[in-house]
Amino acid sequence: MADDFRQILETFPNQFPQRDYTIEIRCPEFTSVCPKTGQPDFGVLTFSYTPDERCVELKSLKMYLQSFRNEGIFYENVTNRILEDLVAVLDPRRMTLLAAFTPRGGISTNVTVTHEKSGQ
Amino acid sequence: MADDFRQILETFPNQFPQRDYTIEIRCPEFTSVCPKTGQPDFGVLTFSYTPDERCVELKSLKMYLQSFRNEGIFYENVTNRILEDLVAVLDPRRMTLLAAFTPRGGISTNVTVTHEKSGQ
Amino acid sequence: MADDFRQILETFPNQFPQRDYTIEIRCPEFTSVCPKTGQPDFGVLTFSYTPDERCVELKSLKMYLQSFRNEGIFYENVTNRILEDLVAVLDPRRMTLLAAFTPRGGISTNVTVTHEKSGQ
Amino acid sequence: MADDFRQILETFPNQFPQRDYTIEIRCPEFTSVCPKTGQPDFGVLTFSYTPDERCVELKSLKMYLQSFRNEGIFYENVTNRILEDLVAVLDPRRMTLLAAFTPRGGISTNVTVTHEKSGQ
Amino acid sequence: MADDFRQILETFPNQFPQRDYTIEIRCPEFTSVCPKTGQPDFGVLTFSYTPDERCVELKSLKMYLQSFRNEGIFYENVTNRILEDLVAVLDPRRMTLLAAFTPRGGISTNVTVTHEKSGQ
Amino acid sequence: MADDFRQILETFPNQFPQRDYTIEIRCPEFTSVCPKTGQPDFGVLTFSYTPDERCVELKSLKMYLQSFRNEGIFYENVTNRILEDLVAVLDPRRMTLLAAFTPRGGISTNVTVTHEKSGQ
Amino acid sequence: MADDFRQILETFPNQFPQRDYTIEIRCPEFTSVCPKTGQPDFGVLTFSYTPDERCVELKSLKMYLQSFRNEGIFYENVTNRILEDLVAVLDPRRMTLLAAFTPRGGISTNVTVTHEKSGQ
Amino acid sequence: MADDFRQILETFPNQFPQRDYTIEIRCPEFTSVCPKTGQPDFGVLTFSYTPDERCVELKSLKMYLQSFRNEGIFYENVTNRILEDLVAVLDPRRMTLLAAFTPRGGISTNVTVTHEKSGQ
Amino acid sequence: MADDFRQILETFPNQFPQRDYTIEIRCPEFTSVCPKTGQPDFGVLTFSYTPDERCVELKSLKMYLQSFRNEGIFYENVTNRILEDLVAVLDPRRMTLLAAFTPRGGISTNVTVTHEKSGQ
Amino acid sequence: MADDFRQILETFPNQFPQRDYTIEIRCPEFTSVCPKTGQPDFGVLTFSYTPDERCVELKSLKMYLQSFRNEGIFYENVTNRILEDLVAVLDPRRMTLLAAFTPRGGISTNVTVTHEKSGQ
Repeated sequence: MADDFRQILETFPNQFPQRDYTIEIRCPEFTSVCPKTGQPDFGVLTFSYTPDERCVELKSLKMYLQSFRNEGIFYENVTNRILEDLVAVLDPRRMTLLAAFTPRGGISTNVTVTHEKSGQ
Repeated sequence: MADDFRQILETFPNQFPQRDYTIEIRCPEFTSVCPKTGQPDFGVLTFSYTPDERCVELKSLKMYLQSFRNEGIFYENVTNRILEDLVAVLDPRRMTLLAAFTPRGGISTNVTVTHEKSGQ
Repeated sequence: MADDFRQILETFPNQFPQRDYTIEIRCPEFTSVCPKTGQPDFGVLTFSYTPDERCVELKSLKMYLQSFRNEGIFYENVTNRILEDLVAVLDPRRMTLLAAFTPRGGISTNVTVTHEKSGQ
Repeated sequence: MADDFRQILETFPNQFPQRDYTIEIRCPEFTSVCPKTGQPDFGVLTFSYTPDERCVELKSLKMYLQSFRNEGIFYENVTNRILEDLVAVLDPRRMTLLAAFTPRGGISTNVTVTHEKSGQ
Repeated sequence: MADDFRQILETFPNQFPQRDYTIEIRCPEFTSVCPKTGQPDFGVLTFSYTPDERCVELKSLKMYLQSFRNEGIFYENVTNRILEDLVAVLDPRRMTLLAAFTPRGGISTNVTVTHEKSGQ
Repeated sequence: MADDFRQILETFPNQFPQRDYTIEIRCPEFTSVCPKTGQPDFGVLTFSYTPDERCVELKSLKMYLQSFRNEGIFYENVTNRILEDLVAVLDPRRMTLLAAFTPRGGISTNVTVTHEKSGQ
Repeated sequence: MADDFRQILETFPNQFPQRDYTIEIRCPEFTSVCPKTGQPDFGVLTFSYTPDERCVELKSLKMYLQSFRNEGIFYENVTNRILEDLVAVLDPRRMTLLAAFTPRGGISTNVTVTHEKSGQ
Repeated sequence: MADDFRQILETFPNQFPQRDYTIEIRCPEFTSVCPKTGQPDFGVLTFSYTPDERCVELKSLKMYLQSFRNEGIFYENVTNRILEDLVAVLDPRRMTLLAAFTPRGGISTNVTVTHEKSGQ
Repeated sequence: MADDFRQILETFPNQFPQRDYTIEIRCPEFTSVCPKTGQPDFGVLTFSYTPDERCVELKSLKMYLQSFRNEGIFYENVTNRILEDLVAVLDPRRMTLLAAFTPRGGISTNVTVTHEKSGQ
Repeated sequence: MADDFRQILETFPNQFPQRDYTIEIRCPEFTSVCPKTGQPDFGVLTFSYTPDERCVELKSLKMYLQSFRNEGIFYENVTNRILEDLVAVLDPRRMTLLAAFTPRGGISTNVTVTHEKSGQ
């Protein structure tokens, strides 16, 4: 599944690769479907990354995230999958993804995943 | 007592064990009973852990926490007990539990307990 | 059921009946049980009333509300019931009860009930 | 379209019809699709109503709102349509629906619709 | 008791009696003693009044409120008493006193008392 | 000037004219230029209106507001002008525009203008 | 004193006198001196007025308020005086001034004064 | 003085001494008297400590803090004294006390004192 | 382009170069234009720097930032460019620029760039 | 200038010099004058220091800060000067002063200066 979604992501060249800097992108409108109950899940995704050669194009990121709208996938898995897709297309120096899901049964869950480029 | 409660907790395999990541779970609807006064206590429990081989299943966590609803147990003890139960079933790389109890007699209390897997 | 609970409520004489004034009481630690799912419900009850001859004693109000801890009762019903019990023992000039329940399935519910003494 | 959705809504009898009281229901996880751009819309729906003979069952309300997940419909229309569906099944004494949509192009929109039962 | 406290209050002439205007005074450091338990009570007093011929001098108001520091008196009574003392020395066109007391046993209480000059 | 801008505004038919309802539109990215100092002004515009036969199309409203980006015009005038333009194209039953400008010289200014359709 | 200050205020013609609208001006940097203690007082002034023929020019209002920087004057008096000066130069349809002073001795004070043009 | 107060403090055995954990206790109702002016002082005390063999009993802590109600003592001194008393009876691994006092003359003061058990 | 803008920036000598200290400057009124869509972008720029021999004059910084008002430039590029210009004229010991842009398509972006003087 | 102001500062002996502790003092009512424009500046000063042999007396600190009321001095300079004066009279182990000035021309500025006693 996610392999296909990954093709939606577009990138553009980082014009300041000589400098380590941080891009934080906040997407409060993420929704997917719980594979167990079939009920929609909602969350806020916050990406924070240091680009190497490529930056992610925002509109394609939006389209990519919308691909999950009717997909059934668990919290922990969707967070790790999205990080992996972005790492695959951007190869960033480092990237963190925080996914904060809304309460279910009085319980709310945040998942935080981090990637560090080897050799950094 | 708590040994029995522990059996309520269910787990599922962590599909991304090659990566250190964090799961934060916030449970604002915890209630137990003060063993001294018989009055109900109320608190917000916040778990934060790095899974190793297993993750906790959220519905079973909810049921487990509901087991304390009519149990008489002190703040410090209930916090340590719950951490121990989760460590026993998950064997996480590290876990912190912050329990924030509502005011009594104009005084409010937070208890924070941390477990680190030996050899980490 | 509630008839018995009502006996827990104690009152004391209003020493300033010649004046209309308002007493607001906020109880953020209300919990009962959903009769359909058996799961606990949590809410904040806010009473606001103008006493006539009697005021409610706070400790007895706390004990009265604790009686619902393990009772199965719906949101709309518990709010109306509690108002009726307080009206029965206080006969206030007017009283409003706002019950704000925590989210379930991503949906939260407030119920507001008002009583006005006839002839006011 | 909405006629079919309306059949999802279930109701139960109001047990306190002799009294005017208010039920407020907040649904922060509403999403539909913009018919012009095909992009998802997100909003918070807040219902506030005084029941007459019937109250809305919350789980069916959740399912009903989920029906719009992949429907293309404008802000003003979806708000009026949902109010009409609820009025049709509940015949409430009065009902207000406030739909607060998230920003698009730096602009955010709230739509507020009210129904008053004739003869009230 | 309160008769003696009342003598502490000082006033000065209202220089703009031809105009109805409002003076709001917020005193977040009020403390007295519960006559039942002997435990200290704490509250925020907010006065709002339209002066007629006299305004209250702020330092004397502070000293007057400090007189209650070690007095045993109930919430409802202390609020009504303080309003009466201020009405006695100021004879204001109208005055409201809101006393917001801190939580006890998980329950917090606000008392609001209003005086309107007869003939206004 | 504004006459030309007015032509940018597009409308669509109100599909629910039989009902009085309210549309609130918040535009936090308004900017124009102070005619006295040549410095840019910034403000948040909040429209609230009850449509009659026509609703304003949001994208055209955005383009219309961007026309003021390099125009020199005072706070009071720009607020009244924008209201007049919207009234001219929508002929709403009623409309309020609140323009909240950012501080200048330690002073911030809000202007609120209201239009009521004659005969309402 | 204030008569001289009043001369600092400048006005400009209201270009929309046919319409009742509101201008709110917030000045959080007001300071004067307590005539009793010689200590500086600080407050936030909020003007809200409906202009008739004239509007107040903001820079002159700033300079006018700065005139009080080293003047000794009581809370109630300074608030009434400033309202009177603005009424004298603007002759507005109505004007309210809320002056919120910072705490002294644990007590904070707000003074609210209103002017309504006779015949309105 | 404080030596006597110290006797009020009661302790109970820490049941989890094998683990370093933190207990935070917030007391927003502290009051003493300024020895210079005789005026009451108010503050919020926040204790944070890692117990060794003993934990402090909360009701006795409340009674101990009430002993300062009519004592004349400076901010810096009362904070250090209270820390010393708690260290004397608990011998904690480490303890921090933050005392946040309310504004006087427009100035507010926080005092933070820390104790670390030697050999830790 | 930016080379010309850079000439607008003025500096003054740092009078305390013997000490490392921090100047933080917050500019919430930044606006430029998206080169792709021609639509205006809005953001909050926060500079934080330790001066060496020169400090930036605030009015010139304001004028410099206004130069971007009608320039088409991407988020990542404008943030890096502005940092470079300030580093060129100030040669600070270190400087960070955080640019927080408002949401577009439900997604908001922050860019953070840091410069450290070599040999620090 | 500041040399004379410095004489206003009074100190008292630190009674707990054997322990490193922190005193934080917040002064939200600081005002001076811009030497360039003659306009008043406003800011919040927050001192945080670890005393050695002396503590600053709060009333004298208030009087000292009031000396700047009509002085013309720049942000960066006034912050460094005040730190130097306090260091001169207190010789603290360490001290930080954060001065947060209100917005001018849409831009707000914070200056943070730190002193560390040599040999600490």
